[in-house]
Amino acid sequence: METKNFDFFAYLKRKAEKVEKVLTEFFPQPKGYGGRVVEAASYSLSAGGKRIRPVLCLASCEVVGGRDEDVLFFAAGIECIHTYSLIHDDLPAMDDDDFRRGKPSCHKAYDEATAILAGDGLQSLAFWFFTHPEQVKRVSKSALLKAIHLISQAVGFEGMVGGQMADLLMEGKKAGLKILKWIHLHKTVKLIEASVLAGALLAKAKKKELQALKSYAKHLGMAFQIVDDLLDVIGDEKKLGKKNLSDLKKQKLTYPSVVGLEKTRELAEIHTQKAISALEPFGEKAIPLRAMAEFVLKRVY
Amino acid sequence: METKNFDFFAYLKRKAEKVEKVLTEFFPQPKGYGGRVVEAASYSLSAGGKRIRPVLCLASCEVVGGRDEDVLFFAAGIECIHTYSLIHDDLPAMDDDDFRRGKPSCHKAYDEATAILAGDGLQSLAFWFFTHPEQVKRVSKSALLKAIHLISQAVGFEGMVGGQMADLLMEGKKAGLKILKWIHLHKTVKLIEASVLAGALLAKAKKKELQALKSYAKHLGMAFQIVDDLLDVIGDEKKLGKKNLSDLKKQKLTYPSVVGLEKTRELAEIHTQKAISALEPFGEKAIPLRAMAEFVLKRVY
Repeated sequence: METKNFDFFAYLKRKAEKVEKVLTEFFPQPKGYGGRVVEAASYSLSAGGKRIRPVLCLASCEVVGGRDEDVLFFAAGIECIHTYSLIHDDLPAMDDDDFRRGKPSCHKAYDEATAILAGDGLQSLAFWFFTHPEQVKRVSKSALLKAIHLISQAVGFEGMVGGQMADLLMEGKKAGLKILKWIHLHKTVKLIEASVLAGALLAKAKKKELQALKSYAKHLGMAFQIVDDLLDVIGDEKKLGKKNLSDLKKQKLTYPSVVGLEKTRELAEIHTQKAISALEPFGEKAIPLRAMAEFVLKRVY
Repeated sequence: METKNFDFFAYLKRKAEKVEKVLTEFFPQPKGYGGRVVEAASYSLSAGGKRIRPVLCLASCEVVGGRDEDVLFFAAGIECIHTYSLIHDDLPAMDDDDFRRGKPSCHKAYDEATAILAGDGLQSLAFWFFTHPEQVKRVSKSALLKAIHLISQAVGFEGMVGGQMADLLMEGKKAGLKILKWIHLHKTVKLIEASVLAGALLAKAKKKELQALKSYAKHLGMAFQIVDDLLDVIGDEKKLGKKNLSDLKKQKLTYPSVVGLEKTRELAEIHTQKAISALEPFGEKAIPLRAMAEFVLKRVY
């Protein structure tokens, strides 16, 4: 399986545009007396995210033989959840970040109350997309309910929310690799895993396919978060859109702070390799998913 | 239809206990490094709410011939959404209330970040309950997906979140009855309406039954919010659990501040009567729903 002749960026753009179309067309209008919160949510949603998670959902659907059209609303909902989590993470009471992707974060562009509500509304909107009639009519209802159940767990107390809580609690404390891994697994990996599994579930994946994709997603997610930690130290400020070393300044627990830079790079490579290995059963069909893993790693080189 | 010989409080207790059982049994354990957020959510969830919304869901299911057992997980999820909205409403950036039901509000008992995350996790948990295998196996999957779609819209930008945004924007401003109605409709009524409609949908209600229940829920919800506004002026501080006049102090838009006390009482009665009238097609079976409407009104006498 080679990705040399595969234009990953064209692929990413093509898939992301499909999700974008649904998001744009079906996003609520900022009408009524509470329109400000829709504007704020829309501001953050269109702040230049690469749509990695929804594209993973589409790519995973594709690798088991499904069609993009059958999971577009689900993928749009996934991006709403991701955006809600970024808005809330940036709040003064949380990570207190004034910038996100080079633009003022939601509570800076609007205000704190509006940002809290924008995040809340985006989470509701995600489940609205998941259960949209256009989504419901295209897949097995049973699989759809399973996918929603899976994702609601992945982003809740036993997933993303629990991970963010632990991350905040560990600020300024000494902790080892075990805790760091737990935090990343919950804060970042579970949503990535659920995005991949949902795409496959909706395309009627077999049990073995789900297992392989779960392993792929887990390692991809770990690599993703480790690379994110690395970029916080070595990354280009403009590209990342927030000040370098911001995590270090906040004394966040990160891979470089726990195991050092060299070991961090090594771990990113190991997880990327494991993610790619997990794709073997799919052969050539898995080139896009493989390219995604390579792309994640390339961000640090 | 008479409610004289109907013991509404026994009914409320019986139904609420069934929901309680599911909530207690299936609520996540505060394990792992992020357990604090589960504790905080649990603290707010068990702070003594009357479980009006989930009981409405059960009662509405019952009036069209359904069984409690078929909507218990759904009803549990509804209470999670209601609790999340209270936690976020109380935050310093929002209504800034230090007390709720006579106890310190979540961000006072814990802290702001934990309270934001507790609310976020409760919203995710609601959708986890809605799609729990125990719920899925008991009802039509198509009806369940419709009910989730309905409720996700009712609590999002075009419902509760939009209403809370407008409520905040109107603080300290002069505004008329039209805006006040809009705010209450979105902030309070839509979730009550969705709770009633979901119960009926899951019990395979006919179109005409849904229409009648929608009208009932709308007027019940309006009466509920108007009474809440009244209690803020005339209510017993202990019973309500927050300081009297707190909304007036914050210059919130309320019925008494816009139309005066007498007209407010009159409107509460009119909406209660309209709610009761909408129940006519159901005859004796609607006694619990009628008693609920009478109970809401009685809170101010």
